[in-house]
Amino acid sequence: MTKTIINGQPGHLIDIKDRGLNYGDGFFTTAKVVDGQVQLWPLHRARLSECARRLGFGELDFVALEQDVTQLLGSNQALAEEPAVLKVLYTRGSGGRGYAPPSDVQPTRVLSLLPYPSAYQGIAQKGLSLSVAKTRLAQQPLLAGLKTLNRLEQVFIKQEAAQQSSDDLLVLDTTDKVIETSSANLLMYKQGQWYTPSLEQAGIQGVYLTHLQQRLPIISCQLNLAQVLSMDAVFCCNSLMELVPITRIAYHDYNLDVALSLLVKQGIKV
Amino acid sequence: MTKTIINGQPGHLIDIKDRGLNYGDGFFTTAKVVDGQVQLWPLHRARLSECARRLGFGELDFVALEQDVTQLLGSNQALAEEPAVLKVLYTRGSGGRGYAPPSDVQPTRVLSLLPYPSAYQGIAQKGLSLSVAKTRLAQQPLLAGLKTLNRLEQVFIKQEAAQQSSDDLLVLDTTDKVIETSSANLLMYKQGQWYTPSLEQAGIQGVYLTHLQQRLPIISCQLNLAQVLSMDAVFCCNSLMELVPITRIAYHDYNLDVALSLLVKQGIKV
Repeated sequence: MTKTIINGQPGHLIDIKDRGLNYGDGFFTTAKVVDGQVQLWPLHRARLSECARRLGFGELDFVALEQDVTQLLGSNQALAEEPAVLKVLYTRGSGGRGYAPPSDVQPTRVLSLLPYPSAYQGIAQKGLSLSVAKTRLAQQPLLAGLKTLNRLEQVFIKQEAAQQSSDDLLVLDTTDKVIETSSANLLMYKQGQWYTPSLEQAGIQGVYLTHLQQRLPIISCQLNLAQVLSMDAVFCCNSLMELVPITRIAYHDYNLDVALSLLVKQGIKV
Repeated sequence: MTKTIINGQPGHLIDIKDRGLNYGDGFFTTAKVVDGQVQLWPLHRARLSECARRLGFGELDFVALEQDVTQLLGSNQALAEEPAVLKVLYTRGSGGRGYAPPSDVQPTRVLSLLPYPSAYQGIAQKGLSLSVAKTRLAQQPLLAGLKTLNRLEQVFIKQEAAQQSSDDLLVLDTTDKVIETSSANLLMYKQGQWYTPSLEQAGIQGVYLTHLQQRLPIISCQLNLAQVLSMDAVFCCNSLMELVPITRIAYHDYNLDVALSLLVKQGIKV
């Protein structure tokens, strides 16, 4: 069973000259696969395209990418039985002079089929508790919103999370604005209005957040910790776990029943 | 002739699961090799050690690393004739759950022997002109000073530099503090005193800068563009090109003869 495809060919090795390894010069996405179907694929595709545009890769070959997806998923019988994760990773390939990229980019395209994280099973009903991370996200509008391969901040955050008893961390930027969790966006509700933190300076624009923004009127704005704690309900979301209620941030508890019944009232499937 | 060694073995391929590729979870250094000898090796070694410590890799195996260096350089006859570049790159290896690193880190160690950049030949006498980069460096004290594999900002800066007629760019952080060039530190002189920008919030602590700091009294402080333009002489430095005078920043010219005679007076070899 093929589990990894590199530039259309089964394989699991890349050249050490690849710019993805040397500079994190690339981007990726992780999608949920249910019954052999990639969920929210048009939105994943759109974000890959946006990353390519902003990093100056030129147009991606989506025909080749979708052939790879078909090859990877079609050969796998187990997908009928349980969810899985499709990871698509692009680098700027090899070449260029040091940091300077080559003028003619030949991207490296890597697809991997991974098991669905067992930790995500059932959390939509149970919710997650958060502590506030000491690690702060830098403000860098050039990279904000993108899911690039420069993810050392998230590695620091996960190292910090492993020392905490909470399920995950709430992450602020260096100016004390609330941005996201270690690997999910935030969606909040107060007095009839939905909110999400602005991602103009830091954070990743998640595909599941975009999906929700296309269905609900959500105000994107700068939010500090006090404002987040004053919300009626807080959720986090990403493509793999989808929408999950937050039960606690630091020493403040949110009512799980309020959150779950809000979703029912608003007609949002969890 | 062996040109790349991975974990002690000749090779040029790494696994796509490697965290260096997926998250830029690692660091590197590039050293000048002259007459088969790695220049400033103790300082390169110290910076590798510092990167490993701050990223939480644990102690590096320097015995194995130095065996690799001997193997790589010893097999290469051409090193007696012309300078070369030794690149040493470490990643956190594979494993962990997503961004979360494994508790037992088995680093990937990659050594490469590369040609010395022809663009660096003779520039110590000729000097370099700089424009001011539009791209700004984010402030992230967790990563400041380190030469990590998260280098997308430098890729943006080099893309911008390719559109300019100057030789390189002067790079500021998001709060307008002067930090470095696209790939070198700054050393400045005014009225008997040496200065270099503080690297507490952004930038890389170059090995050649550390070498100079061990020989000269250099004040490290926050500097804005006006302060840099008021200096008597400005230099940039890195391990490969060593110390190079800056002849122009934006529309301000520096006197190359003043810079070169200053180095002679201070007993600094160029």
